[in-house]
Amino acid sequence: MSVLQELSQNVKSIKPLEYEILARRLKMIRKELRQGERKPYKEVLDVSFGDLHMSGLKPLSFVRQVLAACLYPQLIKSSTFPVDVKQRAQRLLRECAGGSVGSYTATAGIHEIVQRISEFITRRDGGVPCSPENIFISPGSQWSIGNILKILLNSEASPRTGVITPVPNHSTTNSSIMSLGGVVVPYYLNEEQGWQLQVEELQRALDSAKGQCNPIALFVTNPGNPAGQVQSRKSMQDVIRFVSEKRLFLLADEVYQDLLYENSEFVSYKRVLAEMGPPLSDTVELASFHSASKGFIAECGLRGGYVELVNVDPTVMKHIHTMFSTDTCAPVLGQLALDLMINPPQPGDPSYPLYHKEVEHIRTALIHNAKRVREVLNSLPGFSCQPVEGGSFVFPRLFLPAKAIQQAEEMGMKPDTFYCMRLLEEAGVLVLPGSEYGQKEGTHHIRFCIMSPQETMEEVLRRITSFHTQFMRDLS
Amino acid sequence: MSVLQELSQNVKSIKPLEYEILARRLKMIRKELRQGERKPYKEVLDVSFGDLHMSGLKPLSFVRQVLAACLYPQLIKSSTFPVDVKQRAQRLLRECAGGSVGSYTATAGIHEIVQRISEFITRRDGGVPCSPENIFISPGSQWSIGNILKILLNSEASPRTGVITPVPNHSTTNSSIMSLGGVVVPYYLNEEQGWQLQVEELQRALDSAKGQCNPIALFVTNPGNPAGQVQSRKSMQDVIRFVSEKRLFLLADEVYQDLLYENSEFVSYKRVLAEMGPPLSDTVELASFHSASKGFIAECGLRGGYVELVNVDPTVMKHIHTMFSTDTCAPVLGQLALDLMINPPQPGDPSYPLYHKEVEHIRTALIHNAKRVREVLNSLPGFSCQPVEGGSFVFPRLFLPAKAIQQAEEMGMKPDTFYCMRLLEEAGVLVLPGSEYGQKEGTHHIRFCIMSPQETMEEVLRRITSFHTQFMRDLS
Repeated sequence: MSVLQELSQNVKSIKPLEYEILARRLKMIRKELRQGERKPYKEVLDVSFGDLHMSGLKPLSFVRQVLAACLYPQLIKSSTFPVDVKQRAQRLLRECAGGSVGSYTATAGIHEIVQRISEFITRRDGGVPCSPENIFISPGSQWSIGNILKILLNSEASPRTGVITPVPNHSTTNSSIMSLGGVVVPYYLNEEQGWQLQVEELQRALDSAKGQCNPIALFVTNPGNPAGQVQSRKSMQDVIRFVSEKRLFLLADEVYQDLLYENSEFVSYKRVLAEMGPPLSDTVELASFHSASKGFIAECGLRGGYVELVNVDPTVMKHIHTMFSTDTCAPVLGQLALDLMINPPQPGDPSYPLYHKEVEHIRTALIHNAKRVREVLNSLPGFSCQPVEGGSFVFPRLFLPAKAIQQAEEMGMKPDTFYCMRLLEEAGVLVLPGSEYGQKEGTHHIRFCIMSPQETMEEVLRRITSFHTQFMRDLS
Repeated sequence: MSVLQELSQNVKSIKPLEYEILARRLKMIRKELRQGERKPYKEVLDVSFGDLHMSGLKPLSFVRQVLAACLYPQLIKSSTFPVDVKQRAQRLLRECAGGSVGSYTATAGIHEIVQRISEFITRRDGGVPCSPENIFISPGSQWSIGNILKILLNSEASPRTGVITPVPNHSTTNSSIMSLGGVVVPYYLNEEQGWQLQVEELQRALDSAKGQCNPIALFVTNPGNPAGQVQSRKSMQDVIRFVSEKRLFLLADEVYQDLLYENSEFVSYKRVLAEMGPPLSDTVELASFHSASKGFIAECGLRGGYVELVNVDPTVMKHIHTMFSTDTCAPVLGQLALDLMINPPQPGDPSYPLYHKEVEHIRTALIHNAKRVREVLNSLPGFSCQPVEGGSFVFPRLFLPAKAIQQAEEMGMKPDTFYCMRLLEEAGVLVLPGSEYGQKEGTHHIRFCIMSPQETMEEVLRRITSFHTQFMRDLS
């Protein structure tokens, strides 16, 4: 008998993801293809993940050159790299203990980088001040979110502590809340209105929690993942008034702030809050998350993110400092990547022309993909796709015929997982089911990533079109 | 009023570290020196941390060359690096999604690296089989320990769950246990016997928990941190029999397995367990931790470690898989560093001569430092230092005069912190107080790191000698 048989309830509440079922099949299909098995496609296109480099888009040369020079400083002496790359590497190495990226750093991050992040935020927000004391670098934004949730969620409280979270939402945040003993209180984004957040719905969610749990925070993602909406200033003002009135902590996942399409504009919650003036600007407690895994830099594998805290009570800040300081530091190269993301080459720098060209190449691909995905899907019967205004995902609605739902049930699968599995099997495209992210009862969706070269996205859309047409014909 | 005023008890139980008080003063002294203030030293020597590169020892060229080439693959085409470096980089890039270290990997780590870790363990343990299914790569070993503790500790259990942990111990593990709602049950290593672990003491610790908590696991570090002892096979066999009899999960921190002095030998708990044969070898549940932050590679900043699980119940393993899979992957360069650590260049490889020379340079310095520290400290009245058999720290005992203890009390400081503060202030050497790691009531220690160039350690010892002599003269 195992000494571990009495597992913590919180750990047991973590459910395996639908994704894993599909990922396992993907692995097998790839193996079958390698073994020469005949299929209607030569390779599988995996657009399930928000991973620019995996999709075939290239890393930014400037970023990689600086990091390579930091790892192997002899490169600074050689003629391999442009002079601004070498200077950046030299400066960053001076800021590392012992001049090595292999040393530990302060647990909140390298001081100088934290300082420059605060300057970046001030610039971005049109001069709203930002103190480095309120910034903590971490191995990615999900990790920061988890750490702030640890502070917010009291696993011993009765009733339990709740967090009001959007539907749809990326699944990791909900898992974190549950594994820490918190309760997920869902609010629905309005799909028909382009996935906008509506305050009446927040109120309904809050009311629904009565007698169930004690909601202490509201979680928003802007630009949205997976729904791709970008919030208007007006909507953000409504949210800020709501959290102030209901005394909720505001958690703002803003990692997609650089990825904008359809003329949409990103404004940070911090900025909107400052613009609203006192008493709101002095009282609403806010945590804003950003990451080097997203945007044009897209260095997911380096693991660097940060959180900025606003208006948090000083005694609580002390606990947060202590909690972060018991952790080891974030990976140094992830920290350096953050610095390169917020301070890219400027016009006149030797690296600027190539940097600019590479970013524009990615931007053009994403704008193209965001537009084409919507055009193509909306031309297919049984699909309805809202505009993709920002971020890296699209979350189209799928109107499945009754026969498809019945077949899925017979196979013990959720209808949207059934659709994804068939799409993978028959067309060699991996997308993920809406049930993984939450959706209104009775509706179905798929989620996929638009961060890929245009040709790849065109091929994905061709395969979806052909599969979907056949699927609807067979099962209608 | 803050919405966070009701902080989770577990978070509040995390105390700020003594280290922070000293670190703050260190920062100020460095600033004062920069501003030209006159002190008896020109720079502070910080030997408080186990950080090879910070101390001035150099990173291994082979490791850095491969990683730089992986970051910026154009380097593979150039003539900058030896051919085996390029081949390693090419192979590793093939194993990264999209051929980029910027992509996410499987959450347990890149499959091929996990596979090679299992082969390394099998080699190391003289053929004892190891399955890749039981290995999880993480951002450092502390993170793995935290994740396994999350599984072990049931924060809702009554009585609470306990973990039997050594005194002295590195402070992060104890913080993790407490922050997860567990109870630390201390057992004392026997200083007079070279910090050996004694089973009678484990029994005493277990008895002491009665009525307090339900001990579910035993934590050991071998080679020891901070005490520097290396366990004998016999002692490990005793421990294995003890955990089997008492049905405890065995947590073995083995991150210092490559750093051995004084003819000591490292044998893994997994190997000893296998040698003991059934029923023990089939039943004792073990987690063993290793890291790329230690050893000769010492890439703390890259954040790569792993845990191997042995004999864990399959249903529990499923939960562990699920829990690890809700996290994002470990930093890719940390994962690659692990691979380079366990598969260094071999004789005949173009990189071997330089690699060998660099490793031997570090090894010579550490062997010298381990020996010299003991010689010098034991020659000083009021110091007693056990042999440093392994690891990167020394934990000498300090016999403080009554006057020193009284002065410390008057200043509201722990006596050993008082000593460390005076040493920092007057001699410009940062070491940490034993109270940070736990010590027998009424005894005092300091901890410092021996991973530094020989000249640095000699200078540290000169400064300690001179300070200590004066300190004892003044306060005796």
